[in-house]
Amino acid sequence: MMRTRPLKVALLGCGVVGSEVARIMTTHADDLAARVGAPVELAGVAVRRPDKVREGIDPALITTDATALVKRGDLDIVVEVIGGIEPARTLITTAFEHGASVVSANKALLAQDGAALHAAAEEHGKDLYYEAAVAGAIPLIRPLRESLAGDKVNRVLGIVNGTTNFILDKMDSTGAGYQEALDEATALGYAEADPTADVEGFDAAAKAAILAGIAFHTRVRLDDVHREGMTEVTAADFASAREMGCTIKLLAICERAEDGASVTARVHPAMIPLSHPLASVRGAYNAVFVESDASGQLMFYGPGAGGSPTASAVLGDLVAVGRNRLGSTTGPGESAYAALPVSPMGEVVTRYHISLDVADKPGVLAQVATVFAEHGVSIDTVRQQGKDGEASLVVVTHRASDAALGGTVEALRKLDTVRGVASIMRVEGE
Amino acid sequence: MMRTRPLKVALLGCGVVGSEVARIMTTHADDLAARVGAPVELAGVAVRRPDKVREGIDPALITTDATALVKRGDLDIVVEVIGGIEPARTLITTAFEHGASVVSANKALLAQDGAALHAAAEEHGKDLYYEAAVAGAIPLIRPLRESLAGDKVNRVLGIVNGTTNFILDKMDSTGAGYQEALDEATALGYAEADPTADVEGFDAAAKAAILAGIAFHTRVRLDDVHREGMTEVTAADFASAREMGCTIKLLAICERAEDGASVTARVHPAMIPLSHPLASVRGAYNAVFVESDASGQLMFYGPGAGGSPTASAVLGDLVAVGRNRLGSTTGPGESAYAALPVSPMGEVVTRYHISLDVADKPGVLAQVATVFAEHGVSIDTVRQQGKDGEASLVVVTHRASDAALGGTVEALRKLDTVRGVASIMRVEGE
Repeated sequence: MMRTRPLKVALLGCGVVGSEVARIMTTHADDLAARVGAPVELAGVAVRRPDKVREGIDPALITTDATALVKRGDLDIVVEVIGGIEPARTLITTAFEHGASVVSANKALLAQDGAALHAAAEEHGKDLYYEAAVAGAIPLIRPLRESLAGDKVNRVLGIVNGTTNFILDKMDSTGAGYQEALDEATALGYAEADPTADVEGFDAAAKAAILAGIAFHTRVRLDDVHREGMTEVTAADFASAREMGCTIKLLAICERAEDGASVTARVHPAMIPLSHPLASVRGAYNAVFVESDASGQLMFYGPGAGGSPTASAVLGDLVAVGRNRLGSTTGPGESAYAALPVSPMGEVVTRYHISLDVADKPGVLAQVATVFAEHGVSIDTVRQQGKDGEASLVVVTHRASDAALGGTVEALRKLDTVRGVASIMRVEGE
Repeated sequence: MMRTRPLKVALLGCGVVGSEVARIMTTHADDLAARVGAPVELAGVAVRRPDKVREGIDPALITTDATALVKRGDLDIVVEVIGGIEPARTLITTAFEHGASVVSANKALLAQDGAALHAAAEEHGKDLYYEAAVAGAIPLIRPLRESLAGDKVNRVLGIVNGTTNFILDKMDSTGAGYQEALDEATALGYAEADPTADVEGFDAAAKAAILAGIAFHTRVRLDDVHREGMTEVTAADFASAREMGCTIKLLAICERAEDGASVTARVHPAMIPLSHPLASVRGAYNAVFVESDASGQLMFYGPGAGGSPTASAVLGDLVAVGRNRLGSTTGPGESAYAALPVSPMGEVVTRYHISLDVADKPGVLAQVATVFAEHGVSIDTVRQQGKDGEASLVVVTHRASDAALGGTVEALRKLDTVRGVASIMRVEGE
């Protein structure tokens, strides 16, 4: 059954993930060949720094001319692990034009230009696979795209960024503040020197866009995702969360509206009950909850980043695409037939935990409660704590729209008796 | 892009799962058509009791002649949800012979005759998919077979039977005995009138065989799986487990030997640390841990049984097989190229928790410790409790082979000072 002509694979990028892909392709060559049905040959590796020593890779394969590599015309599969928008985007489309299928780990690019890339793949009859773009080794794209293809997904709720989960877990378990926890994450290599993409939620938002698109058979772009970072989360927020039997996680949440006619996607810190399986996801691990009509609740858990796990996801795609090449077929392409509108954040409905600093005098609670009522936001519980003329009021609401909550908070800020809004946090997973 | 001629699907069996498959095929017809690329038509339903009212199914489609149905020759896909070995096996092979691909939820049949069925599918160029056979809606077969195709799986450790997990969870949380917890499971519909297949581990063993086969690219049959039920687990065992910071679960464990040259598969109750993610799997839920070289630890969690979740898995396969039909291709077939030997239970290496009833007099511990040492089983901890001339000794070992442990226990039973071996339980997940 084994075909003699090998499948030729070009690797674009040879950093943490790329070098691990090359290493496994070499050390597990026999296994890969058996699983694909043909030998898999590394035909070229495009790098920026050709002088760097790359153990186990034939120096003759190294090139700095990625464009020439993808234009060779004899490639079966191009593996793109450069990241970023350009030159990755042009290299991928050039690869399709010259007859190769593509495996990518590029979440930013897929979230921004997924539709155009899928169209280019389809135009040339090629595959575009990107399991590694979301949650590292955790199989998520394939289960959503294939295993749940006969089901109706209503919600995807997940921890999809390991760096921020490490920081939040550290704050929760040690009482540390944000900066202290970030410093530790940086020292341990969990956070990059510039942590913006992680802590401001850009990374998670790209993944949310990709997941929402697949889950709802609808194009969702990065711009459609409401994004709030987690740099404002304080030790006091964790204390409040604990009083409610909750912890705080940076969540990516993709939801179908209750009437089914629209979807939303968002990334922000939120309280979730300690009894929720996502609450016990520790350190830099990722986990994604999927709720659907027939399956109920599924959870996928594992390492969300790192060279080896991401390489595993790339190689899984490589085997699938390789098999497709041998069978002269392609796997499922983009499925965007539902084309549901993506609603703005104001239409998201959830619960809220609001801490107010208020004057400690009679009538304040009545005033505050009136403001909530006037905006149609129903209060679940209120807790008052007061001393020395200062007091705090913690309000937990029933489900309300983000727009209604926003109006409520704006009105609260105008009350004389409200000295400040200490924190607003959404409550999810209930 | 939509093809006009519909894909014709026959349903064999219309019980809890089958009727749910039929219902979703009807109510979600447009979604299925969009995802497959062609309308999907229910062409016939084989049942045993034709007079039963089946809401939403055209009575003209009902037949008692399953053989004639699969021989029609115009079917694209046969969905087999009858269960059991015959007539399911003959109907599936007949379906292949007459041009149909097959989606099955039949774990018993796949565990016993998977190789022959895969061969029949391949001979006729058809697909055989069976995601629903293991852990209901939890995508497990596809991730193992495809997402991890570029990785090396070393271990699969899972709770794959919801009935027994419900019973054990109940015993753990309420202190109930086995019979009491079983009675409650029966009353709530989680256990069948005859619970043998679940509580004796037959169901889990079939799933273990299927998972081991896919994980290790090796044929593993039901007979290769060591099986112990959980009817002997007592409230005292749970008390011992708690003292160790553990709980007890019925686990399916598929392992590659440390030298990589053989594999084992087994089902038995075992202690696992409360800190292990599997320890917090409650009620009738299932969860499977997968450990591999590159991915590290992944976990898949969800409802392991029930009409809707199982139907979701069947329909996911139906979409994949339907797409394959339209593309005139087939998905990955059996991958058994590694053909590793399956070692007997004696070669399994793990830790053990042993409770002994012993005479309360000096020298007993020395005698017992000598027996362990003579059999090469190293002791981790010992705890003695004594009163009124009776005493118990709880020994937890380091890792040792099952054969060595068996020899140890046999020798212990022969000691005058050992009145009895109260319980032996393996300790996993550390």
